[in-house]
Amino acid sequence: MEYLEKIGERAREASVKLALMLQDEKNEVLKKCAEALIEYQDEILDANSEDVKRSRENNVKESLIDRLMLTPQRIKSMADGLLEVAALPDPVGEVLSMNVRPNGLVIGEKRVPLGVIGMIYESRPNVTVDAFGLCFKTGNAVILRGGSDAIKSNIAIVKALHEGLRRAGVTEDAVILIEDISRETVNKMMRLDKYIDVLIPRGGAGLIRSVKENSSIPVIETGTGNCHVYVDEYADFDMALNIIDNAKTQRLGVCNTCESLVIHEKISERFIPLLYERLSAKGVEIRADEKACAICPECVPATEEDYYTEYLDKIISLKVVDSIDEAIWHINHYNTKHSDAIVTENYGNAMRFLNEIDAAAVYVNASTRFTDGNEFGFGAEIGISTQKLHARGPMGLKALTTTKFIIFGNGQIRR
Amino acid sequence: MEYLEKIGERAREASVKLALMLQDEKNEVLKKCAEALIEYQDEILDANSEDVKRSRENNVKESLIDRLMLTPQRIKSMADGLLEVAALPDPVGEVLSMNVRPNGLVIGEKRVPLGVIGMIYESRPNVTVDAFGLCFKTGNAVILRGGSDAIKSNIAIVKALHEGLRRAGVTEDAVILIEDISRETVNKMMRLDKYIDVLIPRGGAGLIRSVKENSSIPVIETGTGNCHVYVDEYADFDMALNIIDNAKTQRLGVCNTCESLVIHEKISERFIPLLYERLSAKGVEIRADEKACAICPECVPATEEDYYTEYLDKIISLKVVDSIDEAIWHINHYNTKHSDAIVTENYGNAMRFLNEIDAAAVYVNASTRFTDGNEFGFGAEIGISTQKLHARGPMGLKALTTTKFIIFGNGQIRR
Repeated sequence: MEYLEKIGERAREASVKLALMLQDEKNEVLKKCAEALIEYQDEILDANSEDVKRSRENNVKESLIDRLMLTPQRIKSMADGLLEVAALPDPVGEVLSMNVRPNGLVIGEKRVPLGVIGMIYESRPNVTVDAFGLCFKTGNAVILRGGSDAIKSNIAIVKALHEGLRRAGVTEDAVILIEDISRETVNKMMRLDKYIDVLIPRGGAGLIRSVKENSSIPVIETGTGNCHVYVDEYADFDMALNIIDNAKTQRLGVCNTCESLVIHEKISERFIPLLYERLSAKGVEIRADEKACAICPECVPATEEDYYTEYLDKIISLKVVDSIDEAIWHINHYNTKHSDAIVTENYGNAMRFLNEIDAAAVYVNASTRFTDGNEFGFGAEIGISTQKLHARGPMGLKALTTTKFIIFGNGQIRR
Repeated sequence: MEYLEKIGERAREASVKLALMLQDEKNEVLKKCAEALIEYQDEILDANSEDVKRSRENNVKESLIDRLMLTPQRIKSMADGLLEVAALPDPVGEVLSMNVRPNGLVIGEKRVPLGVIGMIYESRPNVTVDAFGLCFKTGNAVILRGGSDAIKSNIAIVKALHEGLRRAGVTEDAVILIEDISRETVNKMMRLDKYIDVLIPRGGAGLIRSVKENSSIPVIETGTGNCHVYVDEYADFDMALNIIDNAKTQRLGVCNTCESLVIHEKISERFIPLLYERLSAKGVEIRADEKACAICPECVPATEEDYYTEYLDKIISLKVVDSIDEAIWHINHYNTKHSDAIVTENYGNAMRFLNEIDAAAVYVNASTRFTDGNEFGFGAEIGISTQKLHARGPMGLKALTTTKFIIFGNGQIRR
C-alpha cells in the first residue's frame, strides 16, 4: 500500500472512533494537547528556528517569514486557541428536525462529523493547531499538508499534539501530518477521495485555484476577497469615511479588507476630496476612473485590471457610477463573492443592495472587516467560504459537520 | 466568445433576474410551462420517435429505450410534475436565524438561490422537465446537457418550456439546453466554473465518477446505492422477511433497492432457509458466503466483488456475521453511504446501528426503499446525494439554495 493510502486508511479508522466520542472526552483531549504544546515549546521553537533560517537562506519574503516565525507568545496563543475551541458547544449529535410521516416512520436529521478532512495550507504553523482543534472538536480526523517552509515546525507541533492525544488515551491518527512535502504527493492527496471526505485549502488565490482544478475530493473554497464599499447618494459622509478608513486600513493583508470603492456620481464632487484627504493621510493610493481623476487629480488612473485586484496593500480602486443599478452591476461583476457594503440612509437602496449583491456577506452601514467567525459569534473559524455549496462565509464548527437521516420504523415497507 | 461561454453568460444574466422573482410569479410560469408541454405534445412525440428509432438502429438496450420513450401519458406526468413543484412552498428568502451582536450589528442568514446550476444526465427526457422545474422554483438558471440519444426529444421539450417562459414574460435563458452533444463540449462544460455554481450529474456510476474527477465546478454526487439490510440476532423474522422482500423486489432498478444482506450467525440456521424460500419465489438469486451456503446449498457462492456490487437486478449478496460489530464494519466497508437498515427488537443494537453506520439514511425496522424525496416529505427531488458536503440524502428544493449573511449596521467599524 502506498504512503498516502496508508495515511488515508489510518485517518479513516481514527474517524470512526472520533465520531463516537463524547463532548467531555473531546474537551479533555484539547486541554491535554494545549498543555503538551507548552511543554514542547523549546522543541517547537528550535524546529521553527531551523525553518526560519532555511527560509531566509532561500530568500523567502519577510512578510512570509513573519507568518512562519514562532515565539513563546505565539505558542501560548495557539494553546489558548485549543482551550477556546474546548469551550465552544459541540454541534455533533444535534437533531435539526424530527417528524412523523403519515405511515408512522419517524425521520430525523442529525448532525454528524464529516469523517476525514484534508487541509492544504501555506507555511503558517498556527494553522496546524487551529485546524486540528476545530476538526477534532467536531469528531473528524484531519490530514494536514502544510507549506514546505514550515515542515520542521509542523513536525514538532504534531508531535506535541500526539503526546496530548496519547495521554488522553486517544488514537494519534486523529491528526496526521504528511511529512513528504513533494509536489507529487500533494497532487496525489487531491485524488484521495476514497479516504478524504472534504478538502479545505487555505492560502493565496494560486493555491486555492490549483486545489479546485485538480481535486477529485469535494473542496471548500476559502478566502480571496475583493471587497467593495459603495457610497450611495444618500450616504452620511462621516459614516462613509469612517467605514472606508476602517475597512481599508484597520488590517491590510486579510481577505475582508476593502479593495475597491464605488461612489455615486451625485455626491462624487463633494465626497471624493474628503475621501482623498482621509486615505492619503494613511498613505493609501487611490486608483480611480476618469470621472474621479477629474475631480481629484491626485488619484492614479485605474486600469480594468485594478478593479479585479485584491491588493492586500495600501492601494484601493475607485469607480464613479451614475445609479445604484450600475453600482450593483459593477460590484457583482468584479467582486469575489466575499463581502460588500453599502453606506446609505435610503431604505429602498439598502434593501436592493442586500437582495441583489451576490456575496457571502452583504452589509448596510458597517465595515466589511466584520466578516470573521468570532465577530459573527461562531467562535474560531476554519476559513471563510467564498463558494456557495455547503457553507458560505465564516465557517465555524458547524461547517465541519454533515447530517444523516435517522429513521425509526416498526416494520414499514413501501407500497 | 465561445459557444459554451456565451451560454454561461446568458445563464448568469438570467439567474440575476430569476433570483428576484416572487413566489407567485414563479408558480405562474411553471403553470404556463406545463400547459405548453401539453400543447407541444405532438411535436415532442415526433422528436422522441426519431430518437427511439435512431437508438434502436444503434442497438441501444431495451431497458434504456424504455427510459427514453415518451407517451402522451408520460408527457402528462411531466407537466403534472411542474404543477406539483408549483404547489410546494418556496424556500428562497427564508431567514434561518437573525441575531444582534454585542456591538449592535444585526446579522441574519438568508436562503438565496445557488445561481446557475449545471445538470449532466443520461437519455431520460423526464429529467429535462424535472430539473427545470426544481431549479426554476428556487430562482436558479439551469444549463442542461442530456444524453445524446435523447437530443431531439430534449430540443422539443425545451422549446415548449421556452414558449411557457415567453408567455409569462420571463427570459428563456432560465433553461438552456446544450445542443452540441460532443464529448469535447461536455468536458468543457465541467470547467465552466466562471459561470456555473454547481454541477449535478444524474446517471450511472461511470457518469458520476467522470464528472467528479474532471469538474472544476463544485459537484453534488448523486446516486449509486449498495444498500444493506442487517438481520440482527434479535430480529422479528416476519418483519425481516417483509422488509427484505420489499427492499429488494418492490423495484429492481433504483438506487435505494437493497443489494446486500447481513445475517447474524445465531439466527442464520433458522432464518436463511425462510429467506431462501421467500426470495426464490420472486426469482431472486442469493450469492452467499460459505457459512450461508452450508446452511442453504441452493445459494450461489459469493465472490469478494459481489459485496461491492449494485446489481439493479434479481440478485442479492449475503454475508453471515458473528456480532453486530462485524455487521457494522462490513456495512461501512462495502456500502456506498446511501441507505442501510437493521431489523432488531434490541434497543442497544438499534442505537449502535443508527450511530455507527455511515450513510445518508440509516433505518431501524423499515425498508430502504423509503429514501426518496416524496417519502421524506420534501416533495420532488433533484437526486439523492451520497456525498457529505452541502446536502445528504434526498435533495428537495432546499438543496438547490445557498445562504448569504445580511448585516444591518449603523456605522459599526472594527476595533
